[in-house]
Amino acid sequence: MTNKYRVVQYGMGPIGQSCLRTILAKDSALELVGAIDIDPDKVGKDVADIIGRDEKTGLTVSADVQTVLESTKPDAVVHTTSSFLDRMYDQLILCAKSGANVVSSTEELVFPFDRYPEISREIDAAAKENGITILGTGVNPGYAMDALALMATGVCNEVTRIEVNRVVDAGLRRLPLQIKVGAALTAEVFEERKATGKFGHIGLVESVRLVASGLGWTLSRIDEQLNAVISERKVVTPYLTVEEGQVAGIHHSASGYIGDEEVLSLNLQMFVGAEDPRDAISVHGDPPIDLLIRGGIFGDTATVATLINGIPQVVSGVPGLATVVDVPLPKAFGTKWSLQ
Amino acid sequence: MTNKYRVVQYGMGPIGQSCLRTILAKDSALELVGAIDIDPDKVGKDVADIIGRDEKTGLTVSADVQTVLESTKPDAVVHTTSSFLDRMYDQLILCAKSGANVVSSTEELVFPFDRYPEISREIDAAAKENGITILGTGVNPGYAMDALALMATGVCNEVTRIEVNRVVDAGLRRLPLQIKVGAALTAEVFEERKATGKFGHIGLVESVRLVASGLGWTLSRIDEQLNAVISERKVVTPYLTVEEGQVAGIHHSASGYIGDEEVLSLNLQMFVGAEDPRDAISVHGDPPIDLLIRGGIFGDTATVATLINGIPQVVSGVPGLATVVDVPLPKAFGTKWSLQ
Repeated sequence: MTNKYRVVQYGMGPIGQSCLRTILAKDSALELVGAIDIDPDKVGKDVADIIGRDEKTGLTVSADVQTVLESTKPDAVVHTTSSFLDRMYDQLILCAKSGANVVSSTEELVFPFDRYPEISREIDAAAKENGITILGTGVNPGYAMDALALMATGVCNEVTRIEVNRVVDAGLRRLPLQIKVGAALTAEVFEERKATGKFGHIGLVESVRLVASGLGWTLSRIDEQLNAVISERKVVTPYLTVEEGQVAGIHHSASGYIGDEEVLSLNLQMFVGAEDPRDAISVHGDPPIDLLIRGGIFGDTATVATLINGIPQVVSGVPGLATVVDVPLPKAFGTKWSLQ
Repeated sequence: MTNKYRVVQYGMGPIGQSCLRTILAKDSALELVGAIDIDPDKVGKDVADIIGRDEKTGLTVSADVQTVLESTKPDAVVHTTSSFLDRMYDQLILCAKSGANVVSSTEELVFPFDRYPEISREIDAAAKENGITILGTGVNPGYAMDALALMATGVCNEVTRIEVNRVVDAGLRRLPLQIKVGAALTAEVFEERKATGKFGHIGLVESVRLVASGLGWTLSRIDEQLNAVISERKVVTPYLTVEEGQVAGIHHSASGYIGDEEVLSLNLQMFVGAEDPRDAISVHGDPPIDLLIRGGIFGDTATVATLINGIPQVVSGVPGLATVVDVPLPKAFGTKWSLQ
């Protein structure tokens, strides 16, 4: 590869740090030119010190977004600061104004048009005005329960219903995810926390909307359900122990209806000790498609991959606020053989 | 849908006729404005008479390509005349010059750049000059063994090897396909016919090249192997009987190497009586992906679907000769719910 993409990492939480490691590892395809975070513990330090790398990068973490973007003029920003669009869309506008394409892990950005029509228009206008592409992506939302489901329909003449079942063994994932799904809580505490809106997967409704939009379906309504999965046995993970009768995790589902007919059914089971983890997509149609990813897509690694693989998607994308359905299909980028 | 895509069907063999039926069935999304074929038995007849439909369409089959295209100015041409690009690429140029986007079933068009660099440049130039998109697609090549394999890598940070196994029970397919794979021949006759180059799947090497190109891999060489599958039992299909010891069909494989390492392995088994039909994609990488379509993708129906679903892909595509990897991911189009 003769021209490397010049990349700024914006947001240095766990996912952002993984992105940084991957960007630095893919140094034949990517050049890290800046790193942004507001955490006072990170600002001013070499990126290497944050991600636990011995060799210094020579790049200092900065909280001054505008200066970093204006001085480095990156091809793309990898943006990992928040799950929620309304809290941070000014960050995307700032990137657009600097002329940088953006690939973002913001779950609500995967299909923002219904939840935030005004904000979506504003982002889209800023992107078009500056000739750049802004894309929200990830494994879920962004791939497993939406883009891959749409891809599965690509060989269908007719589709009447799609059912997606993602089963994740949270015991194999990071501690924050185990905590996020409520592992080892009592059922009572789970219900209390659920009432605060702090549980559940972010972006399930976005996946429903993305699939419906991709098929040109106008949904009558979307029903969302979140329930605790109670463990039927004692499960020990490297981080915590779930006793029998305690919460193992969540079963989160969202259904899309046309009239009274449930045409989309997305089910996410994410709990400690889940057996037969998988991503299963069943398209009822002509022909029917019964797609299965055995073992499931391992989210921690794969989320980073979707962001890094999104870099060429946004660099070559049509200007505007895009969804994963508007850009060419995602594929691995900067692999070891690519560098030969 | 307020604006229907205006479509000309170019080529009225079995696949073209299926396309016509589908275009006419999706009349809320598509309007058939012309039909082209050179067969004297078809020219001058109403399209309905060719496809066995009672209700006349009012459209007469014509062999005069230029007049049809110039008088109808379609948004897209569905092109199904040949598997081989060098025999008919002037047809694509003609479409381009008339300003019509093209989605074609031509297997060699799925990735034509290596086999026909000059022709590819000429088609690309004509497409760009006239602001239209030309796309070769299908189930295989175009989806099962290439686009879907690339899509599977979209969640991978690293990919070192991809193995694809497509197993098709030819006994469930049309007679021409059973004949194409040599069902009910003796092993000797199969070998004689194989020597003439008349057997085997067209486009397997194109799939290898498309996947390699999509990943930015430069292959050292591609090995292709075609073998007869000998039936171990008597199999009766609606069309023919394969005796034990006769040819049941083909096992066609193509491998891509980087140095001495086999990095791509595409295996197509297509024979009468094949058990456990499936499309299986195994991505060796980080994370690994083990994707399976149980029962496989039913080719006859699905091929038509990829072409019809390709219409919005080419209409909204960037001008030029595109591959399925350059356009937004394929998805079902004009389904019954889309029309609500």
